[in-house]
Amino acid sequence: MSKLKEDRPLEGIRVLDLTHYEAGPTCTLLLAFLGAEVIKIESPTRGKLNRHLFYGLEGQEDLYFVLLNLNKKSITLDLNTERGRELFDELIKKSDVLVENFATEKMAKWGFSEEALTRCNPALVYASITGYGSYGPYASYPSLDMTAQAMGGLMSITGNQGDPPLRCGATVADSSGGTNLALGIVAALYRREKSGKGMRVEVSLQDSVVSLGRSLLGTHIAFGSKTPKAGNQLKDVVPWNIYGTSEGGYVAICVINQGTFEKLMHLIGKAKIVEEFELYSLQCRKDARDLIEKAIGEWVSNRTKKEVMKVLCDNDIPCGMILDSLEIADDPHLGQREMIVKVVHPQWGEIKVPGCPVKFVDSHLEIKSSPKSGEHNQEVFSGLLGLSKKQIRLLKSRNVI
Amino acid sequence: MSKLKEDRPLEGIRVLDLTHYEAGPTCTLLLAFLGAEVIKIESPTRGKLNRHLFYGLEGQEDLYFVLLNLNKKSITLDLNTERGRELFDELIKKSDVLVENFATEKMAKWGFSEEALTRCNPALVYASITGYGSYGPYASYPSLDMTAQAMGGLMSITGNQGDPPLRCGATVADSSGGTNLALGIVAALYRREKSGKGMRVEVSLQDSVVSLGRSLLGTHIAFGSKTPKAGNQLKDVVPWNIYGTSEGGYVAICVINQGTFEKLMHLIGKAKIVEEFELYSLQCRKDARDLIEKAIGEWVSNRTKKEVMKVLCDNDIPCGMILDSLEIADDPHLGQREMIVKVVHPQWGEIKVPGCPVKFVDSHLEIKSSPKSGEHNQEVFSGLLGLSKKQIRLLKSRNVI
Repeated sequence: MSKLKEDRPLEGIRVLDLTHYEAGPTCTLLLAFLGAEVIKIESPTRGKLNRHLFYGLEGQEDLYFVLLNLNKKSITLDLNTERGRELFDELIKKSDVLVENFATEKMAKWGFSEEALTRCNPALVYASITGYGSYGPYASYPSLDMTAQAMGGLMSITGNQGDPPLRCGATVADSSGGTNLALGIVAALYRREKSGKGMRVEVSLQDSVVSLGRSLLGTHIAFGSKTPKAGNQLKDVVPWNIYGTSEGGYVAICVINQGTFEKLMHLIGKAKIVEEFELYSLQCRKDARDLIEKAIGEWVSNRTKKEVMKVLCDNDIPCGMILDSLEIADDPHLGQREMIVKVVHPQWGEIKVPGCPVKFVDSHLEIKSSPKSGEHNQEVFSGLLGLSKKQIRLLKSRNVI
Repeated sequence: MSKLKEDRPLEGIRVLDLTHYEAGPTCTLLLAFLGAEVIKIESPTRGKLNRHLFYGLEGQEDLYFVLLNLNKKSITLDLNTERGRELFDELIKKSDVLVENFATEKMAKWGFSEEALTRCNPALVYASITGYGSYGPYASYPSLDMTAQAMGGLMSITGNQGDPPLRCGATVADSSGGTNLALGIVAALYRREKSGKGMRVEVSLQDSVVSLGRSLLGTHIAFGSKTPKAGNQLKDVVPWNIYGTSEGGYVAICVINQGTFEKLMHLIGKAKIVEEFELYSLQCRKDARDLIEKAIGEWVSNRTKKEVMKVLCDNDIPCGMILDSLEIADDPHLGQREMIVKVVHPQWGEIKVPGCPVKFVDSHLEIKSSPKSGEHNQEVFSGLLGLSKKQIRLLKSRNVI
């Protein structure tokens, strides 16, 4: 096991994790998946609240917390105490990365301004994620996933024409923001190998959403027009839509390439309409949108989604089944890729969880459940900082840890 | 200018870019933004097609191409010729990273299997992005953004209850996939500093979409239930919705924290209903969803979206305006963050384009337009590979470059 772990690219990197909610924890989750030692710092008194954000303190920990904190270590430490801040200083000296998602003033109020942190450890990569970043007119404004989807343009282009704005069903502002921050951190770590110095990295949720809309929204930004909402269609590509299947399911079929389009028409027995209506370019296909959609719809409606996907994909025609959470959980492909894996949680027992979307050939990732609060206090405060058992007991009795 | 460039974290890294469509180019765009030298390799004969995918060869290059290829260099090289493959071998020896998004067999058919590439340059980071990755039952299947949104569960949770599956309006499978691959590449570059060896990295679009759904879809995967579609609401949080404003716009308001909720109710003059209905927990707020939504809706409907956002955010209550492409283009905050910047394209003139979502304090990024096809042939074939003017002329006359 320890042999396998040495293959992970960020092996040897220590990350202090002061994040909560989703974007920050997503960042440190990815760093942990890549092999970094991520030490999550929780409040000894109020830490439990983050683990029971949605369903109250009585029941099991929120799965929301569990899923975003796999493969991490946990210590308790109260930064509101002087002794707590001293210990944090010691941890900063022995760490490579600090990630936090507090409002800007919070860190400085504790005495951990950028300058103070750099003085303490000039090689530290200091990374923050907030709704709008640390500068610009909205810098002090709060934001959560949907407000970021709104301010980044995503809600204006999701849904059907004429309908009100709609969010994307997944928390893509948080998850893409966290991924962007992980990218920035690893890039800064790479540079540190050359310069010996840390860097200050920041990501905003709004910027991240704009980046998600780079191609479609970006085209209209550059052209100076308002992006139309088009439901499941694309203005410039036919076919690009979903189609109902015989058992009440759906498939998505998307074809850009002209040769692939003609193969599709042939396969569904409609080669004739290509000739008859001279559907020899994307432009002609756009003009015949209804005709093409109807032909595909009829053919799909007589088959199951599994059948449709297999026959189209076997012929190199892009087609995907619409899968829901239950189907994803049992998808044989995701299982084989270890994108869905089983872990054992002390309260939930054996559960299936999403794994790491970045795969390194010849480097195996073992996924472990989220830590108990303070599970690694002994390891970190004794092993890393060299405190005695007595000192640790004392800190605990004073609620510093 | 060159001084500023030295501050970028990936300065000195050379990337060969064999990608097309969107996920691959997004990856190399981010690497270029981070300071890497990205050399895009285009076919001397068919390269133009990728630049005119949607609107035909007559008009300007697709903005789709321009936006995804900022800050890159371009050379032409025909890998279907023996001399082209020899030159590619030379480039591999002098590069750090190769990124491609072909079907798996394509690279091997050219003689560029993983083994061959590693033999040529053992320190090469070889990165691929495909619909389903290189192993598992779907490995050979084609995929585009929407089929990946379908197979990753995203379409099953976007939209209103009872409605058919819906895609997210932005190409989040492609953009998150490209970002994941960039993260993997930079992690591999970091590790190479320790090991001296390259790595093989791969990302699949389906895995990337599952990762976007980690919190919401993941919760239901772990719990063993089907994720409900909830439009703009969240099952477990009230308020979390959009509200119409006086001028016909919309704002998103999202409140998890109980103290923030009570502040919101006070601010809109409804402190009384908190008392009357004992709205002292998330659970009670969920039970009073309609009441709370109505109270907020009425208050918002008498104000413009700018007014609502300002007063709520000034009071630390998460609120965002729904912005469209035209508003994004002129958003003062995104302008100040250089998330929307101006570049000059030879055909389009001055256009606004989305910038880099990862910000390094004290490191300025200069964003340049996409290169012309073969714009850097001289620089690369002469400067990097040492070919003479005569040799380059000959290669051009034979359509090798």
